[in-house]
Amino acid sequence: MIGIFDSGVGGMTVARAIEQVCPGLPIVYFGDIARTPYGTKSPETIIEYCRKNTDFLISQGARMIVVACNSAAATGAEALRQHHAVPILDVILPATIRAANVSRTGRIGVIGTRATIQSGIYERRLQEVRPESRVFGQPAPLLVPLVEENWLNRRETKMIIRKYLHPLRQKQIDTLVLGCTHYPLLKHLIGPRIGRRVALVDSSLELAGYLNRFLEERPQLREALEQARQPSRFFVSDLTDPVRKLAERIFGRTITLERVDV
Amino acid sequence: MIGIFDSGVGGMTVARAIEQVCPGLPIVYFGDIARTPYGTKSPETIIEYCRKNTDFLISQGARMIVVACNSAAATGAEALRQHHAVPILDVILPATIRAANVSRTGRIGVIGTRATIQSGIYERRLQEVRPESRVFGQPAPLLVPLVEENWLNRRETKMIIRKYLHPLRQKQIDTLVLGCTHYPLLKHLIGPRIGRRVALVDSSLELAGYLNRFLEERPQLREALEQARQPSRFFVSDLTDPVRKLAERIFGRTITLERVDV
Repeated sequence: MIGIFDSGVGGMTVARAIEQVCPGLPIVYFGDIARTPYGTKSPETIIEYCRKNTDFLISQGARMIVVACNSAAATGAEALRQHHAVPILDVILPATIRAANVSRTGRIGVIGTRATIQSGIYERRLQEVRPESRVFGQPAPLLVPLVEENWLNRRETKMIIRKYLHPLRQKQIDTLVLGCTHYPLLKHLIGPRIGRRVALVDSSLELAGYLNRFLEERPQLREALEQARQPSRFFVSDLTDPVRKLAERIFGRTITLERVDV
Repeated sequence: MIGIFDSGVGGMTVARAIEQVCPGLPIVYFGDIARTPYGTKSPETIIEYCRKNTDFLISQGARMIVVACNSAAATGAEALRQHHAVPILDVILPATIRAANVSRTGRIGVIGTRATIQSGIYERRLQEVRPESRVFGQPAPLLVPLVEENWLNRRETKMIIRKYLHPLRQKQIDTLVLGCTHYPLLKHLIGPRIGRRVALVDSSLELAGYLNRFLEERPQLREALEQARQPSRFFVSDLTDPVRKLAERIFGRTITLERVDV
């Protein structure tokens, strides 16, 4: 099985994309709703949560881990790689590769939680793959609660998005990375407000494509992951009605969510 | 010492009010920033956190507990009373007494997190103290992240407050309970938008006054609490810059925050 964890439900956009791009790959998902959000918390706390989540997924049969939360990936993925023997993919690398390839001018914007932007990980990774690029990070912390409230078409949401994007417009970026797994649900508002000529990079979709290519080159790993022959399972550390609704909206079907303490 | 816990920094408005109303009473505070917010989480999870927080405060010398978070008080205070021998006050009772006394028409509004409003606790308690009252609850979940982002005077914040208050205006309430310890920081926006003729009840302030009267009637308990002769201490389960800033704004001075795992 492939283990996926996120601070909450946002990572389900990654799980859904993996389902579509790699059908037949059994998923074990863990959403840490009881301690969500991660993006406002300190690196030490995020790293501790990442370790616990990874241990849980491995105990459930995961042979590979996807860190589906940008805040966790930004601060915790390296610690996990040092600590665990299984392959660990995170949502940040595929998005940076895509952004580096798609940008004409090399002026790339990134929106994300405060933890993600403050970590500077997008800047560092983009400059590794495209050294002359200029990367402009913008924290957009209110977008997560707005998505979780299902305010996906409200005037206030549009105004707040415009406010967050304003500094990036002034920097004349030509590519914008949606550096949080909640943001794909706001793509329809972000696109028109950043401008039609700016390419949007969706970190959830990019991860699924990257994983597919990664497994094509590693048939033995793919076989090990598929070996489980179990149906996918979705665990959460807390369960409320808004969580159920958001999960249903992301998957377009009813998902059985199992509550677990980690 | 008097133990105070909250899901985060909001409860510091309670600690500050207690400092002012009961000077000389040593405080041990715990803010559960690592797992904040509580208001979007399920009753089971909130109760578990309340127990852990209370155990920690007692281990630090607390002889009485104040549940300074409305979401925790709404779902966890009763479980704590059954479980612990120390007196347990919560922010909800003093606010309901005040609202019942101050309202002329008995039409009382309450704003709070989803957990607080869904628990129905304000309705139940208000109807105990004033049976003919009509209570209108309105969840206002985005106000907590807006306060935590320090968006205290933004146009978007004003619009969102107006949207939340609109149904309560239509109910022609004459009293509004601020049923979340973050909301006192938005009083200056809530007042004009609900209307000058509506009395605002601040649950943090009411708790401090209630506690003072409670201890006046129990001189032995007061003595036991003051016995510690220790300075007040403020613990948090996570520590970031916005938390430090918000604490400073609430107290009007620098506060030493000690990080602890609970």
